Amino acid sequence: MTAARQAVGILIFDDVEVLDFAGPFEVFSRTRLVPGADSRRSDDSAPFDTFTVARSPEAITTIGGLKVIPHYAWADAPPIDILVVPGGFGTRALLRDEEVLAWIRRAAADASLVTSVCTGALLLAQIGTLRGRRATTHWAAHDLLVSIDPTIQLQRDVRVVADTIFTSAGVSAGLDMAFAVVERLHGAEVARETARYIEYVPQYQDTV
Amino acid sequence: MTAARQAVGILIFDDVEVLDFAGPFEVFSRTRLVPGADSRRSDDSAPFDTFTVARSPEAITTIGGLKVIPHYAWADAPPIDILVVPGGFGTRALLRDEEVLAWIRRAAADASLVTSVCTGALLLAQIGTLRGRRATTHWAAHDLLVSIDPTIQLQRDVRVVADTIFTSAGVSAGLDMAFAVVERLHGAEVARETARYIEYVPQYQDTV
Repeated sequence: MTAARQAVGILIFDDVEVLDFAGPFEVFSRTRLVPGADSRRSDDSAPFDTFTVARSPEAITTIGGLKVIPHYAWADAPPIDILVVPGGFGTRALLRDEEVLAWIRRAAADASLVTSVCTGALLLAQIGTLRGRRATTHWAAHDLLVSIDPTIQLQRDVRVVADTIFTSAGVSAGLDMAFAVVERLHGAEVARETARYIEYVPQYQDTV
Repeated sequence: MTAARQAVGILIFDDVEVLDFAGPFEVFSRTRLVPGADSRRSDDSAPFDTFTVARSPEAITTIGGLKVIPHYAWADAPPIDILVVPGGFGTRALLRDEEVLAWIRRAAADASLVTSVCTGALLLAQIGTLRGRRATTHWAAHDLLVSIDPTIQLQRDVRVVADTIFTSAGVSAGLDMAFAVVERLHGAEVARETARYIEYVPQYQDTV
């Protein structure tokens, strides 16, 4: 593969929900344009460079207590093409954290595609990115999402909403969101082959 | 909750597949016997104490480059009730690593339940734990599994095999394996409520 890889930057923070970021990380980091002869999945045709980004270089602690060292602190992170904002209860404190909101606002403006998983959508709503758009979030946060921005057209019963911004329902729906992005950028066959590799059957509804 | 929590110990190692360990970590760490009034899921009724274990206290690097600091090194780990052995290409080197095989053998002997995800089954096969049992693994490793132990009754088209040992198909099937364990130990209603929380629809076939 000669074309430059697209940079997938996944924001992580204390009390992020594990599967919210690990699901998209798995899908983006294991996608291959040419699967190759064996199941080792050589990096040669990987279309994405997938990494995590956090406020500081120190490890963050997820809900449940997993400690993850981010690939990059904000200050050192390379440009992000595809921004992934996961959810978890950590998002509640971040709604009032001007520093993280400013970082997301800037990263979202620079990215070619902005996505969220679960209650990551609350942060996108807080910075105005979802204004007037179709979007979704974890079912337990539906009311909170529209209270943050009443112009959002909340989609209640879908796993993925592919408006200009891609948002997903809760936790495991982040896998579907990632596959929706893979399909959009690289076609159904690439998404299908990657899904077969991780033995997942993506369920998403493209509402654009 | 007054009863002691069951300790779920998830082995992690270099080149583990992210979703192989993150899926079961999500399910076990977020299960609640009493979900409570809000979606915060207080720890009060958590039936599992879920942690990762590695050879040394230093961070391991997954396939795709995520760095995870284990909760415990082998030398410091508390007793494990439910052992989870995930897969990934890192398992290939471990098949010839007497130190890790000895650790798994001992942990499996002490655990009340032994489980694997994906090619984690190769390691269980290598130590003889799957002898004569029904088991499964990632579809790309079916032949390898039975070449390690020809007495294994390979189950090709199921996501979870709940023999004395619980094994699962590839990667995302670890979510289903974890839900099968939750259902076995705490009933269908607890499994269903947790699945609803993470918006996952478990698919497993209990072949015992």
